[in-house]
Amino acid sequence: MKALVVGANGQIGKHLVTYIQESEKLEAKAMVRKKEQFPFFEEKNAEVALVDLEEDIDSIAKAAKDVDAVVFTAGSGPHTGKDKTIMIDLDGAVKTIEAAKKAGVKRFVMISSFDTRRQAIQDAPESFAPYVAAKHYADEWLRASDLDYTIVHPGLLTNDEGTGQITAGMDLDASEISREDVAKVLVACLENDKTIGKEFQIVNGNTAIEEAVGDL
Amino acid sequence: MKALVVGANGQIGKHLVTYIQESEKLEAKAMVRKKEQFPFFEEKNAEVALVDLEEDIDSIAKAAKDVDAVVFTAGSGPHTGKDKTIMIDLDGAVKTIEAAKKAGVKRFVMISSFDTRRQAIQDAPESFAPYVAAKHYADEWLRASDLDYTIVHPGLLTNDEGTGQITAGMDLDASEISREDVAKVLVACLENDKTIGKEFQIVNGNTAIEEAVGDL
Repeated sequence: MKALVVGANGQIGKHLVTYIQESEKLEAKAMVRKKEQFPFFEEKNAEVALVDLEEDIDSIAKAAKDVDAVVFTAGSGPHTGKDKTIMIDLDGAVKTIEAAKKAGVKRFVMISSFDTRRQAIQDAPESFAPYVAAKHYADEWLRASDLDYTIVHPGLLTNDEGTGQITAGMDLDASEISREDVAKVLVACLENDKTIGKEFQIVNGNTAIEEAVGDL
Repeated sequence: MKALVVGANGQIGKHLVTYIQESEKLEAKAMVRKKEQFPFFEEKNAEVALVDLEEDIDSIAKAAKDVDAVVFTAGSGPHTGKDKTIMIDLDGAVKTIEAAKKAGVKRFVMISSFDTRRQAIQDAPESFAPYVAAKHYADEWLRASDLDYTIVHPGLLTNDEGTGQITAGMDLDASEISREDVAKVLVACLENDKTIGKEFQIVNGNTAIEEAVGDL
């Protein structure tokens, strides 16, 4: 199964491409927006597609035309302006969903935020609420699509080394999770079709990732 | 017919409440977020509701519980940060749509932007694209609802005196329209159920507003 990784040059994206290339069942196609970003992925023998997420749906669909799944890991990051929140976290995600449809790719795995429900927008600190709102609407768009989706809601991301162990479920208490483990969860989702149509939160925990994801 | 005007204290909103109060068939309930904004509307014998659009759906629904229609005229304005674009132009609009549903109000008139189609997001200058995207998703949410909606797409807004004459349709060339005439179009929509389920652009023109709206 070949998966297009949108936002491959991000922190989670790089781990994800690495783990996908290590998996026997999967191969990665890294979507990045600069040629300078190619070498990291080429070294891992991953295919690379040069597309800026601010381009149109057709450009993304072209990158998706020969894959079996799309993983959306792109994020505007906390240090960009709020204009990028709507253009990347919301519109970039929706364009990717529409591109997957256009390319005939049914499987779609989305990295969301820990809690994107309506109440979470209301409860968020003023500076964080626009990001939560953007992710809320991106998730809604995906749920309303007819794609085989999985939505992963990670806790507070850290650069700690992954442990391979998590807690997965809904209504978890917010706590940390490493980007390495998030990437491993995404691989586990791609490898397990029982995650189709599901969404769940993940934080550090005591259950092996494959088991936690399989038990959902 | 009583109409809740969301964003009543805005430039279009004030004209709209004025014209609604002058209409024989309509009465206005002005939703504003500050007590200091009451006198303008009280002088026009309009009812007033004190609700900030950043509050939750229930607060807006409470303001809508005794009305027959909702008009969304709120806008973050060009001088607010892009965080307000997503929180007001998108999320504020969606919360108002959900509040109308919750209050059992079927009729909903939306002021949109001149062109909120996918291609318009792509084509917009970088500084304007987030606003177009926000309006795009708000319009999509309304279309997907089961409300009796009308979506009005005005051209470049001016503070010129209204002429009472417009051109209405789709795929118009972008040009100006006064806020006074936009407000009159909204009144014409409320008064004419043939506008239900329709959306159209408006610019300055040579057709009387009631006729232009009736011919759609």
